[in-house]
Amino acid sequence: MTAFLPTADETRLLARVSATADVTDRLDDRFARVVWSHLTEPGDAVAGRLIAELGASEALRAAVAGGPQDLPGVDRQQMIDARKRWMPRLSRESVRDSLEIAARIGLRLLSPEDEVWPARLGDLDVHAPHVLWVRGDASLAARAQPSVALIGARAATSYGEHVAIDLSAELCASGIAIVSGAAYGIDGAAHRTALAAGGKTLALLAGGVDRPYPAGHTDLIGRIGDAGAVIGEAPPGSAPTKWRFLQRNRLIAALADATVVVEAGWRSGSLNTAGHALTLGRPVGAVPGPITSAASAGALRLLRESAATCITCAADVRELLGDAPPLALFDLDDSALRPRTDDSTRVRDALSTRAWRLPDEVARRSGMSPGEVEAVLGLLMLGGEVEQSPLGWRRRSADPR
Amino acid sequence: MTAFLPTADETRLLARVSATADVTDRLDDRFARVVWSHLTEPGDAVAGRLIAELGASEALRAAVAGGPQDLPGVDRQQMIDARKRWMPRLSRESVRDSLEIAARIGLRLLSPEDEVWPARLGDLDVHAPHVLWVRGDASLAARAQPSVALIGARAATSYGEHVAIDLSAELCASGIAIVSGAAYGIDGAAHRTALAAGGKTLALLAGGVDRPYPAGHTDLIGRIGDAGAVIGEAPPGSAPTKWRFLQRNRLIAALADATVVVEAGWRSGSLNTAGHALTLGRPVGAVPGPITSAASAGALRLLRESAATCITCAADVRELLGDAPPLALFDLDDSALRPRTDDSTRVRDALSTRAWRLPDEVARRSGMSPGEVEAVLGLLMLGGEVEQSPLGWRRRSADPR
Repeated sequence: MTAFLPTADETRLLARVSATADVTDRLDDRFARVVWSHLTEPGDAVAGRLIAELGASEALRAAVAGGPQDLPGVDRQQMIDARKRWMPRLSRESVRDSLEIAARIGLRLLSPEDEVWPARLGDLDVHAPHVLWVRGDASLAARAQPSVALIGARAATSYGEHVAIDLSAELCASGIAIVSGAAYGIDGAAHRTALAAGGKTLALLAGGVDRPYPAGHTDLIGRIGDAGAVIGEAPPGSAPTKWRFLQRNRLIAALADATVVVEAGWRSGSLNTAGHALTLGRPVGAVPGPITSAASAGALRLLRESAATCITCAADVRELLGDAPPLALFDLDDSALRPRTDDSTRVRDALSTRAWRLPDEVARRSGMSPGEVEAVLGLLMLGGEVEQSPLGWRRRSADPR
Repeated sequence: MTAFLPTADETRLLARVSATADVTDRLDDRFARVVWSHLTEPGDAVAGRLIAELGASEALRAAVAGGPQDLPGVDRQQMIDARKRWMPRLSRESVRDSLEIAARIGLRLLSPEDEVWPARLGDLDVHAPHVLWVRGDASLAARAQPSVALIGARAATSYGEHVAIDLSAELCASGIAIVSGAAYGIDGAAHRTALAAGGKTLALLAGGVDRPYPAGHTDLIGRIGDAGAVIGEAPPGSAPTKWRFLQRNRLIAALADATVVVEAGWRSGSLNTAGHALTLGRPVGAVPGPITSAASAGALRLLRESAATCITCAADVRELLGDAPPLALFDLDDSALRPRTDDSTRVRDALSTRAWRLPDEVARRSGMSPGEVEAVLGLLMLGGEVEQSPLGWRRRSADPR
């Protein structure tokens, strides 16, 4: 099975596109991972288990040879089915094509052998991508910490876009990287603002990073590549299929420290991303909106089901990123909530802004003793709230209720 | 101290305004409670403890005589201070005046001796009101179950009023009574809609129920009295002071099975009502709104602090009223959130709406085995999604992503 060890030419291409200059370190594994990224659709757990068990190169050899007989967590039939999926795609040409496209347009190839491979993708376990193809800064995904995914509906309202812009700008100003999916609506507003603010931003694509999607964001995606990073796991040339979009969402969730749904309809794809983040144990936030807005129904759903923390401003997102303590119970000591029992309120109520009243009269009206009233009146006078004359006391100005 | 047993005249007045025709049952206690409602400001815990310990009539005798020497939970100094508050207000005339006003304008007097006294006020413990004065249906407060307090800002937005109207109409249609405070804004919208819908509605006032407040709601409060009930604990003629507003809020919270803040600013008085509801262990809901709306800041605060359940529709309020189980964790099995792994998605992705493709080609494109693909194609054909020809398979119509 030496057929899938890289030739000199392939090694040269690999060196040109790799994020690490010296590809001779674990060369066979690097090359095998590129092959795996052609054989499988994103998130293929059988491939993930095989590679985890044997290493990428040995796993490839075993798969081509007929599959190992006993792999933990994979029964014989699953392995037979998996090989039926993989083997029709085994093509040296397509592997070479993708490396050549990458070399030609200056993409970078990241694999777990590279120092700048984002370690947190390990949380995806056997669903982790085999490689990442990057347009732009190949080390950004590893460096971009803390980072927040700002995601939401393509069919965003002006409210949603307004919030996405505000959050993106403020989070960038705090040095937080913005991760999103380059779609129309919320994603675009989040990326665009990050670029304008000079912040760090990463776009995760469902297809090949050489194929900007949506087409209307070709320019935006190009600018993200120039200033940040455009990242995908599918080989260059791959189409963005629905399946790959759903799997792309797991990468957004995994590359961000927290995921915030800015605006999302009842069945928005961003709920799928939120679901991935929850599965990974990452904090999820959701921005509320009017209950009359269909564009917020999905975000409100997350809040109602206690799947997400309510996000009302950038500070709330920063709190989500922190080692957030369990949500505090409502603070019953807060003065706005506490049944107000302070005597000064009762004395103020018993005073007029016009008529002068003697302490006994104030006491009767307030239901307090004259001694208590006089003590409070003294304090209120110090505060400039009341005035005294031989006729008694009155409030200085109207105290609007 | 027979001075505070009712005269024949006072007994006649009491019989006329009382919610129970035969006032001779515990006559002295009924009368003493009316006196207590003149001596104290709402929520006076010392009076509450004294009455709980001795009964209203004996408590009044003891208070006039100098206070009992040892009352559980009240030390000697507190009793001395309390008597200084109460005694200046001891006036047979004002008691008689309030009974006469009530008799003249047809108010009803409710006391714990009456069968139609709302039992849940007992949850207020020593802070429970001594009596209630009712304009309208005296038994409604006891009968109005289930009931919901719909409360919020006076300075409501059209969004807030819209939501108050929708919730009030739908809850009334479910037979749920609407409790509120007759203020401008959310309160008014909730009451007005309940009246229009022929539902049950109760308005709690801070001052005497003979003094409609705000003046601009004189007509509305009159209509609530005609069709429902206008309720207050302060004797007729009492002014609505700030203190009494804050204490009135505890009655709203106590008379409703759940409290829903529809729209409230950061320091809105309705947060005080929510605080009372939480203290009583009653469920609290809050309606989210745009994070850009100052009028929703208080409601969002309740949500963020996990003090309230997110309310998006009347069904959510009904759920709040039910024996609600602890909030369900996010359902990761929900299809919108689950990483979609169904094979049909992958086969659909691999098909064209124009070009015919053979199963092997579909298998290669989908990363599935040909056998799996054929099984899925058969199902999709049964569903009318795909069509077959000698050239292979294709999708019947565009499947928008």
